[in-house]
Amino acid sequence: MDIIELAKSAKKASIELAATDSQVKNIALGGIAKALKANAESIIAANQKDLAKAREDNLAGPLLKRLKFDREKIDDVCAGIESLINIAEPVGRTVSAMELDNGLELYKVSCPIGVIGVIFESRPDALVQISSLCLKSGNAVILKGGSEAANTNRVLAETIKAASESSGIAAGWIQLLETRQEVAEMLEADEYIDLIIPRGSNEFVKYIMSNTTIPVLGHADGICHVYVDSEADLDMAVRVSVDSKCQYCAVCNAAETLLVHESIAGEFLPMVKAGFAEKDTEIRGCAKTRKIIDAAIADEHDWTTEYLDNIISIKVVSDFSEAVEHINKFGSGHTDAIITKNAQAAADFMNLVDSADVFWNASTRFADGYRFGLGAEVGVSTTKIHARGPVGIEGLLIYKYKLVGTGQIVADYSGPGAKSYSHKRIEKEFGM
Amino acid sequence: MDIIELAKSAKKASIELAATDSQVKNIALGGIAKALKANAESIIAANQKDLAKAREDNLAGPLLKRLKFDREKIDDVCAGIESLINIAEPVGRTVSAMELDNGLELYKVSCPIGVIGVIFESRPDALVQISSLCLKSGNAVILKGGSEAANTNRVLAETIKAASESSGIAAGWIQLLETRQEVAEMLEADEYIDLIIPRGSNEFVKYIMSNTTIPVLGHADGICHVYVDSEADLDMAVRVSVDSKCQYCAVCNAAETLLVHESIAGEFLPMVKAGFAEKDTEIRGCAKTRKIIDAAIADEHDWTTEYLDNIISIKVVSDFSEAVEHINKFGSGHTDAIITKNAQAAADFMNLVDSADVFWNASTRFADGYRFGLGAEVGVSTTKIHARGPVGIEGLLIYKYKLVGTGQIVADYSGPGAKSYSHKRIEKEFGM
Repeated sequence: MDIIELAKSAKKASIELAATDSQVKNIALGGIAKALKANAESIIAANQKDLAKAREDNLAGPLLKRLKFDREKIDDVCAGIESLINIAEPVGRTVSAMELDNGLELYKVSCPIGVIGVIFESRPDALVQISSLCLKSGNAVILKGGSEAANTNRVLAETIKAASESSGIAAGWIQLLETRQEVAEMLEADEYIDLIIPRGSNEFVKYIMSNTTIPVLGHADGICHVYVDSEADLDMAVRVSVDSKCQYCAVCNAAETLLVHESIAGEFLPMVKAGFAEKDTEIRGCAKTRKIIDAAIADEHDWTTEYLDNIISIKVVSDFSEAVEHINKFGSGHTDAIITKNAQAAADFMNLVDSADVFWNASTRFADGYRFGLGAEVGVSTTKIHARGPVGIEGLLIYKYKLVGTGQIVADYSGPGAKSYSHKRIEKEFGM
Repeated sequence: MDIIELAKSAKKASIELAATDSQVKNIALGGIAKALKANAESIIAANQKDLAKAREDNLAGPLLKRLKFDREKIDDVCAGIESLINIAEPVGRTVSAMELDNGLELYKVSCPIGVIGVIFESRPDALVQISSLCLKSGNAVILKGGSEAANTNRVLAETIKAASESSGIAAGWIQLLETRQEVAEMLEADEYIDLIIPRGSNEFVKYIMSNTTIPVLGHADGICHVYVDSEADLDMAVRVSVDSKCQYCAVCNAAETLLVHESIAGEFLPMVKAGFAEKDTEIRGCAKTRKIIDAAIADEHDWTTEYLDNIISIKVVSDFSEAVEHINKFGSGHTDAIITKNAQAAADFMNLVDSADVFWNASTRFADGYRFGLGAEVGVSTTKIHARGPVGIEGLLIYKYKLVGTGQIVADYSGPGAKSYSHKRIEKEFGM
C-alpha cells in the first residue's frame, strides 16, 4: 500500500476510534495483552533474528540491551497495558462549560488529536507502549521503529492489529512503516496526519521539523543544568549534582553543566570533585573552576554539548542572574535545577528559567513521565506549545467545542433590540 | 535593527515579562488605555493618511471600513483593555499538583509561551487587541499588520510601547514589522520566536506553514456546514440555515454548504429557498436538489469553496453517514452544525465530525471568541494541537513543571531497596 493510502486509511479509522466506547477500547487493550503473551514464542523468535543481525553488525552493548525483547519485557509491557486499562477514560471529559444564553450551552470536551505519526528508536517495547497509549486516547497511529528491530516490530504490530481489530477497533488504526523512504512520504501526508512525534537526536528532530508542515512534538536534546546557589546546602548540592550527572548519563535528563556561585566555589568544588571521582566522571572546567580544582578546559563548545557520557562541565558564575542567563542561552529548555536554602531565589529561578521542568533541591533525573506519575510517556517535549516536558496521555488529546442550542441564531444577538449573552460558567458535564 | 536582533530583544524581554507581577501588568494595561485616549488626535491623523492613500488605491468599501480608526474605535479597544484588566491573572495558575514522595512535590503551573509573532489583516484595532492580550498573558509580541494601515499601526505601536515600558514592562516586549521582507526573515528566527499566528487566507497560512519551522497556529479557511437531519424541526432549520449563511457572509464561520436529508428534502428545500430569496442569496444545488427547486449547478468544486459571499451550495444526502463523511472530507475542521430533534443523532454528529466547533440546533455564526465568552481572540485555530477553535488568552499559555524537593536523588528510587513513589494527587496551589 502506498503511504498516502495507508495514511488515508488511518484517518478513516481515527474518526471511528474517536467515537469508540471506553469499554470497547479497554476490552481491546486486554485482548492485546493476552495476544502478546500467547504469541510470546514468535515474538521472541523474531527478536532473536534481530539480535543475531545486530551482533553481526557489531552493534554496541547498550544498544543490544535495548533491542532485546524477552519474556520479562513482554510481562513488563503487558503490566503497562493493564495499568492503562485502569485509568479513567480520557476522551469526552468536559474541560469547561458555559451558558451563552438561556438554552444555549457551550461545552469544551476532550477528544483525540486524530492520526499520530511516531518515529522511535530501537527499543521494541516503545512500539507497544505508544500504540496502547494511542488506542486508550482514541488516536490512530503510524509507527516507524528502528531498522535493527524490524522483525520484532513486525510481529508486535501484527499481533496488536489482529487482537484489537477482532475486539471491534476500526481496521487501519495501527500502521507500521519500515523504510526511511516511507518516513519521507509520511511527512508529506499533511492532509491525513495531525501530529508527528520524532524521538531521537536533536539533528534528527530538526530534520523532521524542516521537512514537514505537520505539527511536530519535539523530543530533542537535553542540555540540563544544576545551579548551586550561594545559599545551597553543600552536601545536598554534591549528592544532587552527582545523581543528576551519573545516575544514568546516557539520557536526555542527565545534567551536562554545573553552574556554581562564586561565593561558595572554593568550598564546594573540591567536595563535588571527590563525588564525581567516585563515579569516574571527567570534569571540564572554566578558568575560574580550574583555579580551584584540577580539571580539563571547558570552552563555549562544552556549554552546548550533550555529552551523553560520564563527563560534566563546570562554570563558576558571579551571581544568580549569570546562572539564569547561561541556562536560557545555552540550555535546551528541558530540565534545570537550583540548589538553595533561599525560597525566594528558588521561586525566581523557577519563574525566570524558560524550561519545561524547573526543579528546586532535586535531581534533574526526576524529569520523566513515569517518575512524574503520568503513566507511560510518548516522548519529552521541548517545544512550547501543546504539551511540554514529559508527555503522557494528555498530550495525545485536544478538545472540541460542543454547542447545544434550541435554534438560536446570531441575528437575534446583533443590531437594535439585540439579546445579550449571559456568559455564565456552569458546573456541568456534557451528558450526551 | 535587523530582524534577528529585534527577535532577540523580544526574547530577552519575554523572560522578564513572564515573571512580571500581575499588578504591574494591569497598571501597564491601564496606562496603555490612557495613552491611547491621550494620543487620539495623532492616531486619527495617521489613520486619515492611511485612508487617503487607500482611497487613491481604490480600496473596496468594506476594506475601507475595516481600516477606519476613529474615536469610537479607540473607545472600543480601551473598553477591551479594561475588561482584560479585570480578568483573573492567567499566569502562575496551578493546573495540577502531585506528591511524588514525602517532601517531593510536582506542580504543573501555567506560564506564557514566550515570543509570539502575529501577522494580521488591515484592521488597526487588531494591533491593540493582540498586544494587550499578549501583555496580560506575559508574552512578548512581534506584530506585522496590513500595509494599508502602516501609519496607524506605527502610532499605535509607539503609543503602546511608550506607555507600557514607562509602567515597568521590559523594553523590547512589543515590536512592529513593516515589510514583507521582514516577515520572511522573522520566519527564520526559530531560535527566538515560539509561535506564529498568521491571520488571513488559507493560501497565506499555508505559505507561512511551509516556510518556517516555528509552530504555526492556523487561522485558515472556514468551509462550514449545516446538516438538516431527517428529524429536524424544519422552521428552525430554515432560520438557522439562513442565519449561518447570511447574517454576515464574508467571514470564516459563515456556512458554505447545506446538507439536507433526502427524506425531508421535498418539504424543506422550497422553504429554505424562500428564506434565502429574502436575503438575495444565490443557491447552487446538486442534481437531487435541482429536481426539487430551481438552482444553479453545484459540483465538487463548490464543496471546497469558501464563497465569502451571498452564495450557498446545497447537497441532498441519502443518510446521516453521508453527511458526516461529506463534512469530514470537504470541510475545513472549523464549525459544523446539525439540526435535529434526535438527541442520539446530535451526539453522534458531535462525536464523529472532526471539527473544532460542532453545534446542535444553533447557527455556525456563534463560533467566535466573543460569543464563546473567551474575551478577545487572537485568532481561530483549525490545527489540532495546542489550541483549537476560537483562541483567547488560554491559547497564549503553556505550562512548566515545578518540582520542589528537599535534596532527593533518583539513585534512591532505583535498584535493590529502592524507595517508591507515592504519586498522590494533591489539591494545593503552588504558593511561591
